[in-house]
Amino acid sequence: MKAVRAYFDNAATTKMAPEVLDAMLPYMKEAYGNPGSIHWMGDEAAKAVREARTATAAAVNCLPSEVFFTSGGTESDNIAIIGTASKKRIVASAIEHSAILETCGHLGSHGHKVTLIGVDKDGMVDPDSLRKAMDGNVSVVSVMTANNVIGTVQRIRELSDIAREFGAYFHTDAVQAFTKTDTDVKRLGVDMLSISGHKIHGPKGVGALFVSGDVEIGPITFGGGQERGLRPSTENVPGIVGLGKACATATATMSSDVKRMEKLRNRIIGGILDIKGSALNGSFERRLCSNAHFRFSGIKGAELVLRLSREGIAVSTASACSAGSTDPSHVMTAIGLSPEEALSSLRISLSRYTTEEEVEILLDRLPKAVSEMRS
Amino acid sequence: MKAVRAYFDNAATTKMAPEVLDAMLPYMKEAYGNPGSIHWMGDEAAKAVREARTATAAAVNCLPSEVFFTSGGTESDNIAIIGTASKKRIVASAIEHSAILETCGHLGSHGHKVTLIGVDKDGMVDPDSLRKAMDGNVSVVSVMTANNVIGTVQRIRELSDIAREFGAYFHTDAVQAFTKTDTDVKRLGVDMLSISGHKIHGPKGVGALFVSGDVEIGPITFGGGQERGLRPSTENVPGIVGLGKACATATATMSSDVKRMEKLRNRIIGGILDIKGSALNGSFERRLCSNAHFRFSGIKGAELVLRLSREGIAVSTASACSAGSTDPSHVMTAIGLSPEEALSSLRISLSRYTTEEEVEILLDRLPKAVSEMRS
Repeated sequence: MKAVRAYFDNAATTKMAPEVLDAMLPYMKEAYGNPGSIHWMGDEAAKAVREARTATAAAVNCLPSEVFFTSGGTESDNIAIIGTASKKRIVASAIEHSAILETCGHLGSHGHKVTLIGVDKDGMVDPDSLRKAMDGNVSVVSVMTANNVIGTVQRIRELSDIAREFGAYFHTDAVQAFTKTDTDVKRLGVDMLSISGHKIHGPKGVGALFVSGDVEIGPITFGGGQERGLRPSTENVPGIVGLGKACATATATMSSDVKRMEKLRNRIIGGILDIKGSALNGSFERRLCSNAHFRFSGIKGAELVLRLSREGIAVSTASACSAGSTDPSHVMTAIGLSPEEALSSLRISLSRYTTEEEVEILLDRLPKAVSEMRS
Repeated sequence: MKAVRAYFDNAATTKMAPEVLDAMLPYMKEAYGNPGSIHWMGDEAAKAVREARTATAAAVNCLPSEVFFTSGGTESDNIAIIGTASKKRIVASAIEHSAILETCGHLGSHGHKVTLIGVDKDGMVDPDSLRKAMDGNVSVVSVMTANNVIGTVQRIRELSDIAREFGAYFHTDAVQAFTKTDTDVKRLGVDMLSISGHKIHGPKGVGALFVSGDVEIGPITFGGGQERGLRPSTENVPGIVGLGKACATATATMSSDVKRMEKLRNRIIGGILDIKGSALNGSFERRLCSNAHFRFSGIKGAELVLRLSREGIAVSTASACSAGSTDPSHVMTAIGLSPEEALSSLRISLSRYTTEEEVEILLDRLPKAVSEMRS
């Protein structure tokens, strides 16, 4: 354990809420039944899954029957795209998470035509670009609600309206956005929406896919018929209960949490932009409350991460999924940064647990680290 | 909570071992990093995953690099079959779990030719039947090590030798067998083997697939490249740690646990066969230590399950995955039982936690319940 500890990698994963763990524990101890069993232990497990489904549905404003529990955001994204790919084409933004881009790539190598729409320097998808990319042959359009690297929040409603005009389904990866900006599926007008437990102070290894009742979708794995056949496997009861609790907890305090995070984030942005040769990546106005993403001229982001790690500060460059990579992030390339600029970047991501003290530590150490690395 | 409580549905799911929960808790509390992150919190999570991989590998006698963590047995089975289906044909036994049969069915409806081999009245696959079904066009043969309904343990080595002769991969679903009979991948001679956490006193929502280093296999979901690209998604660190601990704990005491379960199971079989009009389904000699499966003339198994449930005894008819179904189990049909016989069946499944007291309760109540239902 480090003496100083400031965690700013909440876009990679978050600390599980104590009340989430408390809600899970009975199902990891005595109430260990299989929801498929018809005896009393199966019943109590099935009831817990039912309640979690209701809580999850309430958090995105859909029916419980429209919530399908999965093993996480990646699986939710894969089911949404592969499960609806009945027509020839798929359209996605160029800054999607690899769970979407690699899935599109897989379908692209199996006869589908994939169109990726570019974004502007803030990372925004232009509705006109989407319109130009559309025709009647598109199965699904996928644009993430908020970007995992630069935090840009899209105008999803404008985009989903266009998809609908052309008879395509609209999916949004809301893994980063959920509980931090509006993800009401009715207001967004989306047909499918992916969420993940461990990004919202819930457990790892569990997520959900909202699928509107009128979507024709098929499974990508096959087995015992759980989740009405869309995602078979013995239900991860403790994980599902944890996700439900995390949904309920986070949505209850969301508006005050968001305000607090915005305030801390703005303090970070103000403080860091005082460093010479620093710049903010992505939009300031349309930015997730939990994201601050910078570049520092002449600095290698990965080295800065390791240096800060030795001082007890956890940050990242782009996404954890690509943290081992030395290639520039596709997101930063898409917003027009040079490879050097992209590789000089640092992601600082907050959660509702981020404290003022952690922000102080960051604002004390980061400028020193950059200055020492430059000299 | 019931006053009396006797749990005999361990083939559906098991109680998590307290030491497994203890091993998981740090990763559900302070050590919540994403293994993909390059800072110290990522490192400690990555180290935990590495140690769990080593423990899991040791339990089936393979290299750590041959272990791929998944969300459970169903996903492991799906990856094994779909991920290797490069040739035209797939061969499986007729008594596989639905995670295999439904996956074969899916591939069958997409151009593959699926051959299901029958079994004898004990549920054994005849090596000659397999040989007759083989040619050079088979991608993969899948036969479960031990059946989830009737507990029959196959002679896997004889079958895997035949698959190898024809240049096909051999996969075994060892979800039920693992930690209860030999699942050493070298002795079994298998190329792939599926296991699940929650069947061995580990957590739900996690499993593993052993894939021999020389197998050509592709992913079925796409994303951030975790598990060397075969199973992308942020690693379920607590679940993986729990699986590793469950593997280590169960293998350490396996031989004495198996002897104890066999003794209790034989007591159950002896006691129940004293009931008039009862019979044992499946083999006595080649039976999993944890399984006893009966039929009772004139009785509906599902009604018997519900009746015993009201008395605090948890048993099942066939598998939990099909517990809601009123159709006879495909396993019982395959061993030649009539639909009436199949539907009169009861599965009693033990674990290393099964107590003599629970066995006493069962042997006291079950004969009375059958007798009352008949009168």
